[in-house]
Amino acid sequence: MQRIYIKDLSKHVGKDVVIEGFVNTLRHQGGIKFMLVRDVTDKVQTVVLKQNTDSFAVVGDLSVESVIKITGLVKEEKQAPGGIEIEVKEVEVLSKAEELPIPVVVEKGAEDVDQTHRFDYRWLDLRNPEKLKIFNVWTELERGFRRFYEKEGFTQIYTPSFMSAPSESGAEVFKVKYFEGSAYLAQSPQFYKQMAMASGFEKVFVVGPVFRAEASYTTRHMTEFTGWDFEVSYIESHFDVMSIEEDLLISGFKQVKESLDLDIEIPVKPFPKISMSEAKAKLKLVGILSEKKGDLSPEEEREICKLVKEESGSDFVFITDYPIDVRPFYHMRHKDNPSLTKSFDLLYKGVEVTTGAQREHRIEVLESQAKEKGMSLDELKNYINFFRYGCPPHGGVGMGPNRMIMKMLDLPNVKETAFLPRDVKRLTP
Amino acid sequence: MQRIYIKDLSKHVGKDVVIEGFVNTLRHQGGIKFMLVRDVTDKVQTVVLKQNTDSFAVVGDLSVESVIKITGLVKEEKQAPGGIEIEVKEVEVLSKAEELPIPVVVEKGAEDVDQTHRFDYRWLDLRNPEKLKIFNVWTELERGFRRFYEKEGFTQIYTPSFMSAPSESGAEVFKVKYFEGSAYLAQSPQFYKQMAMASGFEKVFVVGPVFRAEASYTTRHMTEFTGWDFEVSYIESHFDVMSIEEDLLISGFKQVKESLDLDIEIPVKPFPKISMSEAKAKLKLVGILSEKKGDLSPEEEREICKLVKEESGSDFVFITDYPIDVRPFYHMRHKDNPSLTKSFDLLYKGVEVTTGAQREHRIEVLESQAKEKGMSLDELKNYINFFRYGCPPHGGVGMGPNRMIMKMLDLPNVKETAFLPRDVKRLTP
Repeated sequence: MQRIYIKDLSKHVGKDVVIEGFVNTLRHQGGIKFMLVRDVTDKVQTVVLKQNTDSFAVVGDLSVESVIKITGLVKEEKQAPGGIEIEVKEVEVLSKAEELPIPVVVEKGAEDVDQTHRFDYRWLDLRNPEKLKIFNVWTELERGFRRFYEKEGFTQIYTPSFMSAPSESGAEVFKVKYFEGSAYLAQSPQFYKQMAMASGFEKVFVVGPVFRAEASYTTRHMTEFTGWDFEVSYIESHFDVMSIEEDLLISGFKQVKESLDLDIEIPVKPFPKISMSEAKAKLKLVGILSEKKGDLSPEEEREICKLVKEESGSDFVFITDYPIDVRPFYHMRHKDNPSLTKSFDLLYKGVEVTTGAQREHRIEVLESQAKEKGMSLDELKNYINFFRYGCPPHGGVGMGPNRMIMKMLDLPNVKETAFLPRDVKRLTP
Repeated sequence: MQRIYIKDLSKHVGKDVVIEGFVNTLRHQGGIKFMLVRDVTDKVQTVVLKQNTDSFAVVGDLSVESVIKITGLVKEEKQAPGGIEIEVKEVEVLSKAEELPIPVVVEKGAEDVDQTHRFDYRWLDLRNPEKLKIFNVWTELERGFRRFYEKEGFTQIYTPSFMSAPSESGAEVFKVKYFEGSAYLAQSPQFYKQMAMASGFEKVFVVGPVFRAEASYTTRHMTEFTGWDFEVSYIESHFDVMSIEEDLLISGFKQVKESLDLDIEIPVKPFPKISMSEAKAKLKLVGILSEKKGDLSPEEEREICKLVKEESGSDFVFITDYPIDVRPFYHMRHKDNPSLTKSFDLLYKGVEVTTGAQREHRIEVLESQAKEKGMSLDELKNYINFFRYGCPPHGGVGMGPNRMIMKMLDLPNVKETAFLPRDVKRLTP
């Protein structure tokens, strides 16, 4: 008999079925044993009667979170959760669980398990159906993004993690022993997606891991995380890039909302946009001042989002026109105000989730900006050469879906959005 | 005026338009200058007349592969390639090209440029529209796969590259300096996607880079490449896994064929399946014998594919039931013949493109199989613990899209399918 999903049981009332899943809870009550069984779709109460001696013995010996296969009769039962119950005819133990180091079924009012301990047993932690939801949000968000990319004719490229030299600066880059020499792990696909522009690809997107050797212990940093990037050619300014990102996010958020019936707000185009100097002026008015000149502290990010939310109702806000000293050398500068870059960050519910810009594609300008930042043109030559033989004007963004999903689901820590978080202290399981 | 794509020019005959692209070729002919301009969609001939003095001067100074923006009148012109021509009114140079180190437009009959030299200038190499096609095949193949995953309710997971210990064996793993200690780069998401099964996710897929420190110099090895994996729970045997892969591949191949109008054969379900011992018997009949007992040499892979193609017309063939000594400890074994694993490889046009199996989910059997292979249970504990608290029976595959696309497009080398190939000798550009 073919196994069916628990969510489909109501279509099989009065019939024998096979279900498979984890033993969510076990209850012995005299001549009856109750098991709540959980599969990926739902839970159901199953009942084993004493007269079914074989099954009764098997279940008597069972432990919570073991994996079982049940053959039984589907019955309507008002007392049971969901109004459906299975009378067990046969039970097979597929995998028996040892005593659990952390609870999988969290009782109401139970104390929270420490995050470090939970992450040590991440595979048990993830058995909570609320955790699976996080990865279904990832799946649907990326699906919505890809629908947009498909409609707009983007090509996907897979950029390498291995680089011959640290990309933008030597700091915060992981070093790999590479046969007789060394390699470095890419901090972003930035240079490579720009290369695709020099190759005439015009519209590309990248999905892949990025690596940051930051000895940072905050709730929003990991050493490895997923980066979502796109880059497009023949733009007029960074406003074209923001417009594309707006459509992309709307497509992604719609997909999440519709397919998972999640209570999130679909953003509306155009998103609010304020320049860095405007943002600083607004913050000054409410008495939030930071040491960071031309950039926003985490507190300022939260506060500016709060102000924009009050003014416009939007969860998103673009901060534009960052000054050159807080931006990398390859950001294009304003013709009429060369101390400002044609760049932006996107904030979502108080956290930065994107950095974007129009890039400098004119080799002589690019070289002069690199020199101005004290960088060695020789060390950058593998990058700068991309612009030597013709390159279209272009721009793009790097997005952090972990942070986006953290805020979307109101999670306390970016690590909760990672299947297996990696940080300074954690490389296992 | 908004830029339009060259492929759409025929809709604008008699009107002024803006196009942007690379100067594909330049020809000066007395009082007329001809430029073939190329964008991501097509090429078009543009004509600059002497009386347009400004533009005439600009183009006189131009080099091939520079990037330009042209405003001009679209005209029907039988002499021009495609029957369309643009009479240039204004030309703006967006980025001027220096003298090219490799030809971008390959003249008929010209000698091939050495692969190493081409890869040194990969961004110019990729300007050939035939190269872009490779990445459009990637994009569509993955799109078709994802359509299948969507229909079947798979969840996407992003597995980490950083591991605390070499995964399956110490050999061929890259070591990373990780703060005060070391980390290793995952050779596959194998252990992690199995962990998702222990978490009750039931159906997952993974797309991401995998790393192999193989000092190999063949046409089918790279140190970093893209892996496509899936894993599913509650299977009966490896035949369930093969059935899923068949549907997946059909979905992917259809998408490529339909969206790119590519002349490829859509496989038909069920694919031919022969056991390793049958394969060896077949090969013996045609006099192909290898040293490899229970496994196929590259020559044998080619030959068995040829035989199957002749017999059944199929480009694909599953080789099943590999003996235990050529398979890892975590492959499940046949109950009635414990010297054989419930595993398979999928060959496509002479090359292995997939390895799959039902995994051993019973912890006591898994431990005994690991010991039998001489492995340390202590070193494997982060993996084996996944099976300690209940784990469904499961299986899955690891696919190599690079090889699949190499064969699909009849390319001579797997590196041609990588946006930026990485091997023992190459970490740039």
